[in-house]
Amino acid sequence: MKDIQQPGASNTVAIVGAGLVGAGWAVVYARAGLKVKVFDANPEITRKSIPLIEGQLAGLHRHGLIEEDPATILSRITTASTLAEAVEGVTYVQESVLERVDVKRQLMIDLDAIASPDLIVGSSTSGIPGSAFALGLSLSPRILIVHPVNPPYLVPVVELVPSPETSAATVEFAETLMKAVGQTVVHVRKEVEGFVLNRLQAVLLREAWALVDEGVASCEDIDKTVRDGLGWRWSFMGPFETIDLNAPGGVADYAVRLGPLYQRIAASRQHEQPWDETLIKQVETQRREHLEHGDLESRRAWRDERLMAFAAARRSTHPEG
Amino acid sequence: MKDIQQPGASNTVAIVGAGLVGAGWAVVYARAGLKVKVFDANPEITRKSIPLIEGQLAGLHRHGLIEEDPATILSRITTASTLAEAVEGVTYVQESVLERVDVKRQLMIDLDAIASPDLIVGSSTSGIPGSAFALGLSLSPRILIVHPVNPPYLVPVVELVPSPETSAATVEFAETLMKAVGQTVVHVRKEVEGFVLNRLQAVLLREAWALVDEGVASCEDIDKTVRDGLGWRWSFMGPFETIDLNAPGGVADYAVRLGPLYQRIAASRQHEQPWDETLIKQVETQRREHLEHGDLESRRAWRDERLMAFAAARRSTHPEG
Repeated sequence: MKDIQQPGASNTVAIVGAGLVGAGWAVVYARAGLKVKVFDANPEITRKSIPLIEGQLAGLHRHGLIEEDPATILSRITTASTLAEAVEGVTYVQESVLERVDVKRQLMIDLDAIASPDLIVGSSTSGIPGSAFALGLSLSPRILIVHPVNPPYLVPVVELVPSPETSAATVEFAETLMKAVGQTVVHVRKEVEGFVLNRLQAVLLREAWALVDEGVASCEDIDKTVRDGLGWRWSFMGPFETIDLNAPGGVADYAVRLGPLYQRIAASRQHEQPWDETLIKQVETQRREHLEHGDLESRRAWRDERLMAFAAARRSTHPEG
Repeated sequence: MKDIQQPGASNTVAIVGAGLVGAGWAVVYARAGLKVKVFDANPEITRKSIPLIEGQLAGLHRHGLIEEDPATILSRITTASTLAEAVEGVTYVQESVLERVDVKRQLMIDLDAIASPDLIVGSSTSGIPGSAFALGLSLSPRILIVHPVNPPYLVPVVELVPSPETSAATVEFAETLMKAVGQTVVHVRKEVEGFVLNRLQAVLLREAWALVDEGVASCEDIDKTVRDGLGWRWSFMGPFETIDLNAPGGVADYAVRLGPLYQRIAASRQHEQPWDETLIKQVETQRREHLEHGDLESRRAWRDERLMAFAAARRSTHPEG
């Protein structure tokens, strides 16, 4: 894309909060042709974001996931020394500051004081609803949640969650922008804890931990069940299309056949108890048998390589997205 | 593999029940070099299984997923006219008959009457525990659940579930056999409804349907959340490795940070209500907007092509399995 499809829009976005998530967002916007200004309240983090972005672009280049030269993309990214400098002349701010209500609220107050009347603000929060930090300001109709998966330049899904004060035009703008930069838009139409993505992850993880707790299966065997079983179809169809194709008459037929079984399974699981110390210790011990603590960091690099290989393979075998 | 690693084992297995699942199993065993005898109580189904298998082998060949000529693999597969003929001289029976307790029980009684003292029987049931149909026979120590995902020649995971009467040697035999033919073994150590795979699927689906019911998100947006988000990491890591890498200190650190959020999310969902007619109708309507009823069949062919492409891509990018 070359410009944001909005009257009066500039082709520059601001990244506020320049840790891992913010740096990943900078790559998303810059590779789509937009100019990006990066700012973090901590100048050291602002400074370090550039080599971080360079590394991410190098990985994308190595896997054939960007067509342009990494240096060309990097040249669209500059740093800013103050919040005012970062948002000056930009149409959109992607906020990825610390995941704390008070920190996000203060940022919104600061932005409210300096924002142009057109500025739209997307928050990367993975779980705090806008109602907790985005209400009661002039800016409020132009704030919404734009929740990515990490890293956003590899995993395309983005949840758009309006607060009760977010305007429809703001949601529409964010949808246009996200599609233009190649992300997949999911609309979360009510503010629920965990939005959609983390709710789905939460219920699966709760069941997984409970199965370990009861001695039904090991962590490793549960991981195998997903990565060599359920995860295959989910990774290109999602759960509804999967079951729609799994009964002769489609999803309604499936619901009649298997709904009662699923109801019994779900009803048999009480979710009230926390993961206690003994269980956490047990899971930790099992994981450390497969991956030592000192190898976590190198395994994260392995994961990012795999995600890039997955993206490259998916692009060639699944071009419709 | 060229023979089953077991004293006195023949290199022939029998497929009993030759529908979609049975035919898929025949491909798994034959491509691994074993001889396969296919039998269904309905001779018409026995007969039709051969062209079905031919089609599956052609797909695997097209995607570079088998090294041998499909005709060579097919030449290892023969049909049998009676159950006695099918199991004569074989060491292992893969049972994939109708998913009904009475049908499975009758088959076990019939097998018990004719089985050699070494015969081991694996049942493909996706949810009926062995205790419901496999107890109290001479054969009982040699019966276990060997539950595949459909189609088993593409999706490698297999759940091994012993009944209380299954011997440890039987589980060990099945594990050796499954690994030898290239499947991924998961041990389910207690008989729980839905085993591991369908329990994980059940809790995720229950949450997904509830989110549609509450108007939080559409079916299509929930599918996007998984296929363009959660499903990416799950398809090569599984849920435990995913969270182990998602907190600086690993899984225990993650549990302390995010456990309470996940507990609140899971506790906020009541699972007691069935999927009622209105909700089923709503989901059906949404799915049919994306895929007309008459296109279900062609979309299933699309799915199988995608699974093969996924398997081929995974083999090249993820050789360690």
